[in-house]
Amino acid sequence: MGDPDQPRREGLDPGQAGLGDMDVAAFREHGHAVIEWIAEYLEHIEDQPVLSQVRPGEVAGKLPDAPPRGPEPFADALRDLDELLLPGVTHWNHPGFHAYFAITGSGPGILAETLIAALNVNGMLWRTSPSATELEEVVVGWLRQLLGLPDRFSGVITDTASISTLISLAAAREAADLDVRDRGLAGRTDLPPLRIYASEQSHSSVEKAAITLGLGRDGVRLIPTDESYRLDTRALEAAIAEDVRFGFRPLAIVPTVGTTSTTSIDPVAAIADTRDRLMDELGHPIWLHVDGAYGGLMAICEEHRSVLDGVERADSFVTNPHKWLFTPIDCSVLFVRDPAMLTRAFSLVPEYLTTDDQGVTDYMDWGVQLGRRFRALKLWMVMRYFGADGLAARIREHVAQAHQVADWLTAHDDFEVVADVPMSTVCFRAVPDWAPAVVLDEEPEDPHAAALDAVNRQLLARVNATGHSYLSHTVLDGRYVLRLAVGNLRTTRSRLEETCELLVRELAALRP
Amino acid sequence: MGDPDQPRREGLDPGQAGLGDMDVAAFREHGHAVIEWIAEYLEHIEDQPVLSQVRPGEVAGKLPDAPPRGPEPFADALRDLDELLLPGVTHWNHPGFHAYFAITGSGPGILAETLIAALNVNGMLWRTSPSATELEEVVVGWLRQLLGLPDRFSGVITDTASISTLISLAAAREAADLDVRDRGLAGRTDLPPLRIYASEQSHSSVEKAAITLGLGRDGVRLIPTDESYRLDTRALEAAIAEDVRFGFRPLAIVPTVGTTSTTSIDPVAAIADTRDRLMDELGHPIWLHVDGAYGGLMAICEEHRSVLDGVERADSFVTNPHKWLFTPIDCSVLFVRDPAMLTRAFSLVPEYLTTDDQGVTDYMDWGVQLGRRFRALKLWMVMRYFGADGLAARIREHVAQAHQVADWLTAHDDFEVVADVPMSTVCFRAVPDWAPAVVLDEEPEDPHAAALDAVNRQLLARVNATGHSYLSHTVLDGRYVLRLAVGNLRTTRSRLEETCELLVRELAALRP
Repeated sequence: MGDPDQPRREGLDPGQAGLGDMDVAAFREHGHAVIEWIAEYLEHIEDQPVLSQVRPGEVAGKLPDAPPRGPEPFADALRDLDELLLPGVTHWNHPGFHAYFAITGSGPGILAETLIAALNVNGMLWRTSPSATELEEVVVGWLRQLLGLPDRFSGVITDTASISTLISLAAAREAADLDVRDRGLAGRTDLPPLRIYASEQSHSSVEKAAITLGLGRDGVRLIPTDESYRLDTRALEAAIAEDVRFGFRPLAIVPTVGTTSTTSIDPVAAIADTRDRLMDELGHPIWLHVDGAYGGLMAICEEHRSVLDGVERADSFVTNPHKWLFTPIDCSVLFVRDPAMLTRAFSLVPEYLTTDDQGVTDYMDWGVQLGRRFRALKLWMVMRYFGADGLAARIREHVAQAHQVADWLTAHDDFEVVADVPMSTVCFRAVPDWAPAVVLDEEPEDPHAAALDAVNRQLLARVNATGHSYLSHTVLDGRYVLRLAVGNLRTTRSRLEETCELLVRELAALRP
Repeated sequence: MGDPDQPRREGLDPGQAGLGDMDVAAFREHGHAVIEWIAEYLEHIEDQPVLSQVRPGEVAGKLPDAPPRGPEPFADALRDLDELLLPGVTHWNHPGFHAYFAITGSGPGILAETLIAALNVNGMLWRTSPSATELEEVVVGWLRQLLGLPDRFSGVITDTASISTLISLAAAREAADLDVRDRGLAGRTDLPPLRIYASEQSHSSVEKAAITLGLGRDGVRLIPTDESYRLDTRALEAAIAEDVRFGFRPLAIVPTVGTTSTTSIDPVAAIADTRDRLMDELGHPIWLHVDGAYGGLMAICEEHRSVLDGVERADSFVTNPHKWLFTPIDCSVLFVRDPAMLTRAFSLVPEYLTTDDQGVTDYMDWGVQLGRRFRALKLWMVMRYFGADGLAARIREHVAQAHQVADWLTAHDDFEVVADVPMSTVCFRAVPDWAPAVVLDEEPEDPHAAALDAVNRQLLARVNATGHSYLSHTVLDGRYVLRLAVGNLRTTRSRLEETCELLVRELAALRP
């Protein structure tokens, strides 16, 4: 029907103004155009700046304030994607993307997402698509084997590590047998304050989960790290002993395998020892959740399997194929030793969702979300396309590339690598001998340190403005530090050399 | 590199055993094959049973226990999708899908998901893709206009209504000024028990959110409904008055526009009056969150805009384009009057995520998840392809189709429609005069009622076993009731007649 006053526009599909979906002939035509668009986009990705250079509001300013009344040709949207949106895209596919964690939505992953959208199943219950549930069980089993984790772990795919960690810590709260599911935490005089422990280098998702779960930021105690930014087990023990003295109840410990700033690896086995000893002493469960969202996947390489030492003793473990397993966002896998603790926390089956199906998994009972995309399909397609050895070879190459960068920077007088490089991320900074000559806005306490921070801030801004490479930063021991993360399948060793040379050139340009 | 012992297999792409991504030529080849696969799938969707007829374990039993060591041809995965997985898929795209809520991942939506996967941006920060953030701001603004909601609402896209409701109720908890973000709820003697109110017909996501947030199931009081399954405002007032007397603090009220069982519409304006009056009396905020996950979208039709009467007074409102706006799963839009309450609850910016960008939205601060897909792109493409009038015409047609079914069933002596049909879902049951003759396993209290329940259970199982149509059930006033939901763009009036005739035929076959 549409608006009768709307003039019939060229390029509209037959039936577009009717009551149905895009017809199949039009789907074919536009679908092939989209595949060509993506092929061109990926082929020429380096022609575009990796970090978008638009100003705030620039993209929105070019878009209409109101939606169109009548239908528009599909080709118009594709044209506007090119002309209006692409300049505002930061290209996570670009081989020069080295910020945060570098990722790849690989070819098989992109095509699998297309199929996921086309099938459009909601895998909330087994019966709402048995293949979605059973393929999920199978592929998380495959991943478990590749990581060398014991059979006793069951897995579930969620959207993000933020959610995986949230539901793990909800299970930890449930496992504490405090009747929180029914009675909640508020207004109760029978509960001690609860505490979760993680290192000062742990991800913000741990604190966010604590806020969400009603434990509050005070419900997380961040433990200092050693000189390699690994959780200090002695400090952990001292903190817990102190907390117990003051009436807190330890609920969970969350070590990280591959922290966000430096990819440091907390000593999970030692922490598991501490946990076991404390459980004996205190006589109640303490949940061990390991955050390997990024770094856990390195264990796919046999020679790096030790990064997961101790994880076999965890209650839960999260790792994200959308980070370092070439799967498009979003795909996080949560392994749990006892899924009954997730269902005890979350299962709520209203009448309209009951079924008679026996002996099946209804994954909606394992977490917060009822709606569940068929994400297993992409993990399956990516694992098959590359094969286990192919996945390992690629991860191995990323680690080698990061070491290449670290060696290069270490050899250069004007740079220093400031943290170990256990995975594929390098933390470094410029330390030019002329730094003290930099003019600062204020008079800081330590002028030399402040000058170095200022130089590195400016260096980062200059490098990111070139469009060649995109790096991010962190702060370690109070120092402003640059991060270069490797993880994109298009990144090559020669391109990383260019990035190192770019750093030198831009640093030279900063010399007063 | 791959495994040197792995024989080179036919059909492998050049470079597949290397260290990079699928090359562009291979992407083109497989991409076009995937588009053709989808076109064929959609064209012949009715050749497959809508509800998968596989047995538990049947799909998993056909899949290898371990992942392949070496790479496999992409075509193998596509073949296995056909042969091994498709029999286990319940076809949400099928015109005979009438269970739960019927949905459509439309053509433009599928193609947009392809582009989303290809761009693979994480819109956590403005700078990690300005277009992702700004297009999101623009399209939620478009949707706001189509729904007739006032300008003062800001919007954010999340994955599911479960998450939208969770973060709304977290904002409600924050708005209560109880310092929950920092201090949490556990072990505090200064907090009253907190209570959220929703109707007995509200979605389980409200209780799940309460569990997650540490309010517990007891933290939700379910209010009885009137004869039309709408929240009874008087009962709400009485319940709150009682709770206040017993020391509970009312935190939020969650009316539903389009409940899951019957699509009943709670009287939001009257509930807003109650809320305002109580806030005056009690002197603290009470959050009004409206769950319009499915039904809110009906307001896109001008003549149905009244379904959102009162929502303009809400603090937050969720509606899901993946339910009734032809957008593939997942896409939920949460509107909030004061986004500062979301950021106050959730914003946590570790050093590695700080930027110097001014005057921009960093959507990661609005909720639990850090990783955010570029979902705005699909909503934008769907709205442009169909146009505002085209969207309204399709929703209008679904409502008309549901009324066609309701009229047909009402006219038939052996069926009764058991609830109003305000949207596009019909609740009905078979009431054949021979029902009392049905032999039951046990001797129930009310043999006639039990016989009717048994007949309807069997009728549902028989209809769903045909593969022609897939209906679901609910329980209303203790009676087992069938639900027929309309919402797929491929469903036609003539096909719905077939479904009605199928119901009659299968019912006749049950006659003793």
